[in-house]
Parts: sequence; structure tokens; C-alpha cells
Amino acid sequence: MKLLKTLPLAAAVIVAPSLGFAQEAGAAAAETQFIFTTLLFLMGGFLVFWMAAGFAMLEAGLVRSKNVTMQLTKNIALFSIAAIMYWLIGYNIMYPGDGWIIQDVFGTISPKDIKTEIDAGGYSNASDFFFQLMFCATTASIVSGTLAERIKLWPFLLFVVVLTGIIYPIEASWQWGGGWLANMGFSDFAGSTLVHAAGGFAALAGAIVLGPRLGKYKDGRVNPMPGSNLALATLGTFILWLGWFGFNGGSQLAMGTLSDANAVAEIFANTNMAAAAGAVTALILTQVMYGKVDLTMVLNGALAGLVSITAEPLAPSLFDALWIGAVGGLIVVFTVPLLDKLKIDDVVGAIPVHLIAGVWGTLIVALHTQATLTDADGNPVLDAEGAEQTVGFFAQLITQAIGVISIGLFVFVVSFVVWYLMKLTVGIRVSEEAEINGLDTAELGMEAYPDFTKG
Amino acid sequence: MKLLKTLPLAAAVIVAPSLGFAQEAGAAAAETQFIFTTLLFLMGGFLVFWMAAGFAMLEAGLVRSKNVTMQLTKNIALFSIAAIMYWLIGYNIMYPGDGWIIQDVFGTISPKDIKTEIDAGGYSNASDFFFQLMFCATTASIVSGTLAERIKLWPFLLFVVVLTGIIYPIEASWQWGGGWLANMGFSDFAGSTLVHAAGGFAALAGAIVLGPRLGKYKDGRVNPMPGSNLALATLGTFILWLGWFGFNGGSQLAMGTLSDANAVAEIFANTNMAAAAGAVTALILTQVMYGKVDLTMVLNGALAGLVSITAEPLAPSLFDALWIGAVGGLIVVFTVPLLDKLKIDDVVGAIPVHLIAGVWGTLIVALHTQATLTDADGNPVLDAEGAEQTVGFFAQLITQAIGVISIGLFVFVVSFVVWYLMKLTVGIRVSEEAEINGLDTAELGMEAYPDFTKG
Amino acid sequence: MKLLKTLPLAAAVIVAPSLGFAQEAGAAAAETQFIFTTLLFLMGGFLVFWMAAGFAMLEAGLVRSKNVTMQLTKNIALFSIAAIMYWLIGYNIMYPGDGWIIQDVFGTISPKDIKTEIDAGGYSNASDFFFQLMFCATTASIVSGTLAERIKLWPFLLFVVVLTGIIYPIEASWQWGGGWLANMGFSDFAGSTLVHAAGGFAALAGAIVLGPRLGKYKDGRVNPMPGSNLALATLGTFILWLGWFGFNGGSQLAMGTLSDANAVAEIFANTNMAAAAGAVTALILTQVMYGKVDLTMVLNGALAGLVSITAEPLAPSLFDALWIGAVGGLIVVFTVPLLDKLKIDDVVGAIPVHLIAGVWGTLIVALHTQATLTDADGNPVLDAEGAEQTVGFFAQLITQAIGVISIGLFVFVVSFVVWYLMKLTVGIRVSEEAEINGLDTAELGMEAYPDFTKG
Repeated sequence: MKLLKTLPLAAAVIVAPSLGFAQEAGAAAAETQFIFTTLLFLMGGFLVFWMAAGFAMLEAGLVRSKNVTMQLTKNIALFSIAAIMYWLIGYNIMYPGDGWIIQDVFGTISPKDIKTEIDAGGYSNASDFFFQLMFCATTASIVSGTLAERIKLWPFLLFVVVLTGIIYPIEASWQWGGGWLANMGFSDFAGSTLVHAAGGFAALAGAIVLGPRLGKYKDGRVNPMPGSNLALATLGTFILWLGWFGFNGGSQLAMGTLSDANAVAEIFANTNMAAAAGAVTALILTQVMYGKVDLTMVLNGALAGLVSITAEPLAPSLFDALWIGAVGGLIVVFTVPLLDKLKIDDVVGAIPVHLIAGVWGTLIVALHTQATLTDADGNPVLDAEGAEQTVGFFAQLITQAIGVISIGLFVFVVSFVVWYLMKLTVGIRVSEEAEINGLDTAELGMEAYPDFTKG
Repeated sequence: MKLLKTLPLAAAVIVAPSLGFAQEAGAAAAETQFIFTTLLFLMGGFLVFWMAAGFAMLEAGLVRSKNVTMQLTKNIALFSIAAIMYWLIGYNIMYPGDGWIIQDVFGTISPKDIKTEIDAGGYSNASDFFFQLMFCATTASIVSGTLAERIKLWPFLLFVVVLTGIIYPIEASWQWGGGWLANMGFSDFAGSTLVHAAGGFAALAGAIVLGPRLGKYKDGRVNPMPGSNLALATLGTFILWLGWFGFNGGSQLAMGTLSDANAVAEIFANTNMAAAAGAVTALILTQVMYGKVDLTMVLNGALAGLVSITAEPLAPSLFDALWIGAVGGLIVVFTVPLLDKLKIDDVVGAIPVHLIAGVWGTLIVALHTQATLTDADGNPVLDAEGAEQTVGFFAQLITQAIGVISIGLFVFVVSFVVWYLMKLTVGIRVSEEAEINGLDTAELGMEAYPDFTKG
Repeated sequence: MKLLKTLPLAAAVIVAPSLGFAQEAGAAAAETQFIFTTLLFLMGGFLVFWMAAGFAMLEAGLVRSKNVTMQLTKNIALFSIAAIMYWLIGYNIMYPGDGWIIQDVFGTISPKDIKTEIDAGGYSNASDFFFQLMFCATTASIVSGTLAERIKLWPFLLFVVVLTGIIYPIEASWQWGGGWLANMGFSDFAGSTLVHAAGGFAALAGAIVLGPRLGKYKDGRVNPMPGSNLALATLGTFILWLGWFGFNGGSQLAMGTLSDANAVAEIFANTNMAAAAGAVTALILTQVMYGKVDLTMVLNGALAGLVSITAEPLAPSLFDALWIGAVGGLIVVFTVPLLDKLKIDDVVGAIPVHLIAGVWGTLIVALHTQATLTDADGNPVLDAEGAEQTVGFFAQLITQAIGVISIGLFVFVVSFVVWYLMKLTVGIRVSEEAEINGLDTAELGMEAYPDFTKG
């Protein structure tokens, strides 16, 4: 997403400034723009909401049947908690510049809502809140897959409270709240780093503190623990792919002009291309490397393609989207085994998909989008013909790296501390017996498929 | 939903009434409004259509594997029947004031369609029909879950014919067709009572006439009969949650102005909050009460939150939406066991979710929305400063209660009679043998999961 | 879909041509129209994308559990390949009249994208590409179901390359690219023939070359091989039904005027009615003919209803949509056994649903939509009152038949040759052992449901 724009409501007035009726005509056009952009947020928002279902299905399909109920419970609970925490705290931390909500939440006893004021940027505040909330929830969804099959329910949900109420809003405010990364020229259109890598770093910290599943790494070998329902996992991937059109397209943050509508369309096309390229790359690579196509790699390849294009889904051509997504697919195929070598047990492959492909997507932004070069006074530097100069590929690449590293460090360290403190106090891991018997019966007393599973 | 508005197409003319081109400019703005509102109906409509899939998955997941094919068959059949009956009869009963369709269906032999006329309210008639149809179908979807695992297919579908062709349209016309409840000041924005409680009352009548499943209540104990696929049930819940944005948001019935678009956005945000609060409440309550989180309660908690906010998703603040939804979740946790005490066997928990939470949602409307006080001549009563007076909380609460009771009584009594007549004549319950072996093989000769189920 | 329209961007100018500000006012209206139509393409496009998930779930549910991973792999792979091939070659073949992309792909080394130019028709090129791409992918999705459970992965995907890169774009260009069928007066609104029957003909050729599954037809009897997961199959059907609103509605290709928005709404209503009628017809017919309702027939009945209305979803009344869809349902019930008599093994029933119902839908167009009669100079023939004359039902029927036969022959023959060449060279069928053990373990080494399946 770009920074929140401040499109003056009166912008359309310039259409026919010399006529007396101009303001009326302009007002009408501004209202139409307001509705289009609000609609973009709502449509984008419900598509990203749908990603919560995608994560739930993907993860439920990739865990063993004895842990499915738990995985489903975590997913619907984490979304619900995110929805509450982001309203209660997160949104205010993330957009400190927006006066309208801070006073409502902190200044009065009963937290008021987002109703009374219309955003100056030309859209409904409520639609913006609805859309932004979904990004916060997505960040939490990424974490649950990695830590599946061994983490306790309530400590996990406590971490979600911290992540969605504090960690995500702080790091996201550095960029989308108009913070220091934004001022530095960092660019992350829809959140390859702010959402995906951030979720991945939180998951990585958790995986390290939590340790691998029993028997996963034994006698120097990696013991495969196949997912119980690849139909669900595939469904989840398709849901995520669909939701991503809203994730990236909605991040244009405007649809009231021909130019913005066209941009949203280009983003849809590029997003689709990157996903397809990631999937095809994993398809071919697993065939070549292992002699057999690996469906879970193809699914994760598509997702990695999506994550890769998320940092800049607009500027690249379709061909660029193809190779950027293809590298995402390649990353998945090569880094999933790498994590196993490091004995980091990532049940669904969320770290390769969201963290590593997220970093890739963020760095490659430097090729297509570069900040404007400014002089000491902050004015743009112009070339001989009066065009604005950009900082160039390498300077932008360094800026991108600074963004990735700073967000990565912040999220990883804070998450690590939170996980570690919980480990020392309440404990974060189920008992060995519970893990062997499955979390569903041991922790919840409820099987996901009571009629099917073997004796 | 509000009553059908009569927005004159020429409304925009007032923008610049003194200029000769005003009508043309006005017409253009009115056309834009027409498209936005039509689009809202179409988008809302396909989202509510999607709820039919949600009910199918939720119910298929909550019945035992031996009854899954039957449950799926009922769900796709009931939607299809609703689509035909609502066109053939229902829509005309529901909107007696709209002359355009009655003469087409009753006045000629071949039922004509909704094509030729554009609604005076500023949207496409066809889009309105499409949207309204989905609400009728939703009412029927609610019934199928409660009566699962023991009711015969064809008597159930016959009831759907009566419900969608006659019962629902009649009671819905009392409010949305501009009938006596609307005139009395009753308020039910998107149908907590008109759709959800109504469906719940029809289900309750059926459950009483039909009786509980064999062995459900035995020797004074409640015998749990766990659902066969909690992944499907969770998917169904997410689908319903998604569809509800269309259900409540579309019920604004207009998106052509800044104010309406903002209202739709606020409805989306409130709807999401109520669902999240219902889920979190059930999550915490089941942990506290039973020492273990119960996923099916969490799912039903989210749904009850959604039902609770449906009667008024616009006026409440986000904080109000939170506690209104939370009470919905609380209702589920406490009334599911209550029904079992009464030996009313509701397989999926539809009565707590749709009926009881629906009543709650409808009553609490009185807090945020009150009818205007009128004098003997029907004119609004003004206070000293000229502002319109409202009837006050208690008067509105009584009106809400009258609405709930009248609709509840009507739907319950008529449904009871229909169920009872069918019981006396064709019979509504499968044989004991069929129930024990499962409806899928006994009634349909087709298993849902032939490769998986035990021995 | 209609032919690509060439709506001049300045069209709205005529609103008030005598005033000096007309162009500005017109331009604003044109921009609003541009956004609406672009939005229609994007919304339609993501709904049709969702159909890819629908096919995946439908097919995964209708194959035996030992072949589910393979079916899922084929579905996500075919969509991804279609996305790339349609960009690389297909789109240019299909729209030879659109100069803007040919030079980009063939004239330069690095295929450029669809970014720089805005289509003259009043919408974003990128949105059009996104929408059209989904139709190409749908054509390929149809093929995978018929050939399930016995075809090798890579030869199947090679066929998808040819189908989506060459076969589909060529035949589709005859009509939607402004080719000879369009000039002849052939009418296929959203692709009953261009997409559905075409996919069906490609599948039929494959089924003949490939032969039936082992043991399917033995000792003169048809051996039923029931699908492993009817919940998934039902989910897939609901997904397809939902996606079809985008498929047919989006094919209006415009939403910027009251008339176009109303048309989209009518299409939604008709599409829904045809699906419902197809389902109810199959419901009743299977009860009457076999004494038991057959869920898979009901699902395919709904889909056949959808295919039947696709060639003309706008002109028919709701009553017409009902009987057109009902005949689709009837076709399914009668032709599924017919194919078995011919020993053509169509695993999911795609040939009855897409090919035969597609032909039905295309022919019946002649009743509601007839081309304008022209004289020797190509001018419309007018009657005494100056109204344009149409060619009449029989002449249109013959035109429709010519379209169906020419596309059918072309797709069938080319597909047959491709399948046959692959059979002679690389081989298209798995080994007997692999077929018996299931393609999942034999070809992919990965079970879809490792925890559930028997022994």
C-alpha cells in the first residue's frame, strides 16, 4: 500500500474552473470517486477476509488428522482476536497521524467507533478500517501454520494479542503510518515485508523457541509427516490466490479515476501472473529434481509467487511479474529442505513462502520503483530537461534492505522475547503424550474426523 | 433492510437547478447512482448466494458421515426450489405494492420476467429480485440443519415449497413490503427476525413434530453425536461470515451517495466485529465452563454474533457491535444445552444461533433505533427546538417484541400445521432401520465418503 | 460475450452538445463509465478465476481417493499454464484486430505487458486481459475431469499448452475476435459453444484416444466407480455456480450505463434461474426414473442448466431461463448413461454438461436472438414502418448450427490429432499397475488422505 493519500475533495473542481457551476459539478465527481474508492476497500477487504478461510483450510489440510480441530480453532480464534485488538489498540498505533480515532479510543471511556468522520482522502473511514484490519489478521494467520501440531492454544492466542495489538501496528506504522521508513524512501506496496515477512519472522522466532515436533528430526534424517487432506490444502491455496486480488488490488487505495482503476486492473493481472509462474516453476523443478511432481510444493510455489509480487504489483510488466513470481517458486523448492537442515520445523512451509519470498519481493522492488532524489532542502533534483531524478537501483536496493532488516530485527526480537517469556512462565508446548496422541483429543476432546481415522 | 425507498430519478437535478443543463447533469448523476445501487444488490446478492454453500458445508460437517450425501442433497435442492418458488409466487406476495410483477405472473399465462421495467427507486428491478431471492433461500437453509439425520427428503422439500413460496413472503411483507409492522415502527434492518428467527421458528416446529434422533436422549442422558468433518464445518462458517457482508451491507439498499456508501462500510465493520466478538466469547466461555475450548461452539458463537447484529448493523458503534455480538456468543453457549434439556434435537444448533440470537438482536435494536413519535394526524411531534421526537426505548422495545412475537407465532403455527399434516399423511421420518444405517445408503444409495468410512 | 465494442470515449458529450462545457462534463461521465466497466471485468474475472477452484473441488470429489492428489495437481497446473500461454500467445491470436499487443509480444524480445494503453472501448486493457484469460483457463478445466484417473500428468499438461495457447484462441477469435462466425451472425453471448462445448469436444477426443478406465466396462456391464468425496463435489458445484455470475454477467462487457447495469442484473437473475431449474429437473427425474435421487446428477443438472443459459443469458425471460435450464438438467440425466453405452468413459460427466448442454444452449439462442437481415449492400432491411428485419428463427438456427459444427469439428479434429500423436510418441496413459494402485502413489508418491484410506 502507498501512504494514505490526501486527495482534496475539491479536486474535480479544476475540470471547469471558469464556470459558475464548477463546484457543484466537482462535488458530484468527488462523491463518485469517494464511492468507488470506498467500494474498492470493501471489495478488497472481503477478499482479504476470505484469506483467513484460506489459511485455515491450507493449514488444516497440511497437518495430520489428529491435530486438525486444533488448527481450525486457532485460525478462527486468531482472526477474531485480531479483529478486536486492531480496533482496540492497533489501528491507533499504526496511524498516529490520523487524529480522529485516537481521541475516541483513549480519550473517552467507551471506545467510540469510526462512524462520525469521513476521511479527507476521499473514502469512508470505516471502509479503510475494515480493509486495514484484514492485513493485521493476515500477519497472524501466517504464524499459526509454522507452529502447528505442538503449540498450546492459549499461549499461541496470547501471542496473537501482542502481535495484532502491538507488534504489527508498530512496524507497519513505520511505513504505512507515514513513519521513518516511508520518509527514507522505502517501498512496500501491499506488504511483502510489512505483512508477509513480518509474519514469517514472528513464526521463525516461535519455531526456534518451541522446537521441532517429536520425531521430526531423528538420527540425522528428516521424517516426513504428510498432511492429512491435500484437497483442503489445495482449496486453501485457491482461496488465498483469490483473496490476493483484494490484497494487492485494494492496496492501490483509490479507484476514483481512470488512472487508478487501470492500476487496479494491472495489479490483478500481475498478481495472477506471478502466482501462475510460481506454481509452474515448482511444478517443473520438483519433476526435474525429484523425478516426481510435489503438489504441496506447487501450492507453496503459487503462494510464494504471490508474496513475491506483493511489494510492487503495479510497476512490473507481465513478463516481469512472471520471472519475479518464478523466483518465488524457486525459493520454495530450495529453502524448504534448507530449513529442515537447520532443524527448524515449519509445518506448512510458511517461512519460505512468506519470509524468504517476502524478502525477495521487497528487494527486487528496487528494479522498478525508485525514490525521487532530493537535495539538502528536500526538494526533488531535476535533470537538464526538468524531469525528477531517482536515487538509482543500488541506493534503492540499500533502502529496501534497511527496511527488511529493521522490520525483521524488530519483529524477530520482540517475538522471540514474548515467546521465550511465555515458555519460562506458562509454557508454550503441549505434553509429549498430548503431542503423540494428537492435540485434538488431548487438548480439545474433539476429533475433526471422528468417523474416518484409523483405529 | 429498510423499506423500499422511492428516490426520484430526477433528484440530482437540484444540484444546479437554475441552469438550463441541469436536467442533463442531474440525469447523469442519477444514472451513476442507479449503477452503484444495482452493483450493491448484485455484489450483495452473490455474497448471500454464497451463504447457501456455507450452510451446505456447515451442515455436512456437523452430521455423521452416514448422512452427509442427504444433507448435501437437501441443501442444493432447497436453494433451487427457493429460487423457483420465490419467482413464481413469493416475490409477488412480499411486495404487493409493486404493481409491475403481479400482473405479469398472475395476469398472463406465461410468467413474464422482471426485465421491462426499471424500479422507481433508482436501481435495476432484476438486481433487487436477485438480492431478495437470496434472503428467501437463506430462511430455508436454516431449517435443514436442525432436522438433519432423520427427516425424509421429499417431505422436507415440500415444506421448503410452502416456506419459500408462502410463509416467508407473507411475514416478510409485513415489514419489507410496507405492511403493518413497518407502519407500526418495527425495525429489522437485514432480518434478525424476518429471516433468521423465522427460519428458526420453522425449524423448531419441525423438530417438535419430528422428534429427536434415535438414541439422542436415553436414560436421562444426552448422547453426543459428533459431526463427521469439522474442517467442512469451519469452512462453512467462514463462508457464512463472508456472505454476511453482503447480507447486511446490501440491506442498505443504496450506494449512490457518499452517505450510503459510508453506511455500507460501517455495516461491514460492525458485522465483522459482532462475529469476532461472538466467537471470542464462546472461546472463553467454553474454556471457563468446561475446561476445554469447543470448536463447534466457537463456530456457532461467530454465527450468533452475526445474527445478533443483523437487525441493526448500522446505528451501533464498533464497541456496541462488540457487546451485541458477544451476547450472541453467550446465548449459544447457554442455550444449546437448554434445548437438550427440553429434548429438542437441533443437530447443528440452528435454533440457538438463528432463533434465540435473532430475537436478542431484534430487541436490542430499541437501544439504537427508535421510531419517530407522531401525533393523531400522523405528523411527527417536534420538541421546542423543532427536532423530531422518538418514541423512546421502552415503546420501541415493545414494538420490537410485538414484531418478534407476531412473526414467531405466525411462522411457528403455520409450520407446525404443515409439518403435522405431512406427518399424518405422507410421513416425515425415515424408518428406524434407515436412520441407524444412515440416510445416504438407505434413502439415496450413495455414500458421501465411500473410501473412508469404517467397516 | 458480444464483440468488443468501440464506444468512443467522447460518447457522453452528446448529453449537452450545445453547451461549451459539454466536453468536460462528457469526459467526466466517460471516466465514470470506464471505471464501472473495468470494475465489471475485474469482479467478473475474479469470480471466473474462482471457477478454477470449483472445477478442482468438483473433480477431486468425483474421483476415487487414490487419484485425488493427481486431480488436484492437474487442476492447479492447468490454470497456471493457461495463464502463461494465453498471455504469451493466445490473447494475440484471439484478438488480431487489436494492434496494441501483437507488436509488443512478437515485435520485441522481452514480451511487454498490457500496461501502456487504454482500450478504445472504454475500459482498462488489463482488466479485459484478466477477464478473457479466465475463459481460456475454463476451457482447459473442462477437459481434466473427463480424462481423470488414467491419463499421465505431463502429456495432459502438454495438451493444455496447445489448447490454451492455440486451439481455444483460434476458435474463439472466429466469434469474439470479430472473425467469420461473428460476421455470419452467429451468437454465443458468454460461450456455451466457444468455451463449454469446445472444452467438451477436446475432452471427447481425449476420451476416445485414451480409452476407458480399467474395468469400467466389463462383460457388457457398466461398473460404477463412485467419487470419494461428495461434500467436495457439492462445494465445487456451488463455487462454479457463484463463478458463473461473473462468467455470464461480465460478458455484458459494459456496466457504464443504466441499460448495461440493468442487463448485467438480468443476466444474474437468469443465470441463477437456469441453474436452479437444471438441478430441480435432475432431482425429479432421477427420483422418477430410478426411485432414488442421485446427488451427482443434481450437481451436474445445475451445471448443465448454467451451460445452457450461457449462450444467451440476457434476452430470455425468467420463465424462458427456467425451461432452457431444465432441458439442460434433462440432457444430463439422459446422456450420461448414453455415453456409457458408447463406452466413452467420462469420469465427471463433463461431456453431457459442457458439450451437449452447450450445443443445446447455443441452438436455442435462435428463439430469442436473431441477426439483422441485410441486403446485398450490407444495409439492414427495413419493414414498412422502418424497423429492422431479422433473419428469422430458422435462418438463425442454421447459423447457430454452423457455428457449433465448425467449432466442434475444428476442436475435435485438432485435439484428436494432438492426443493421437502424443499417444504414438510419449504415451498418454499410465501403466495398468499405476492405474490399479492409484495415480497418487504411483505417479506422485503422495496420498491426498494418508490418514483415512483403507488398508
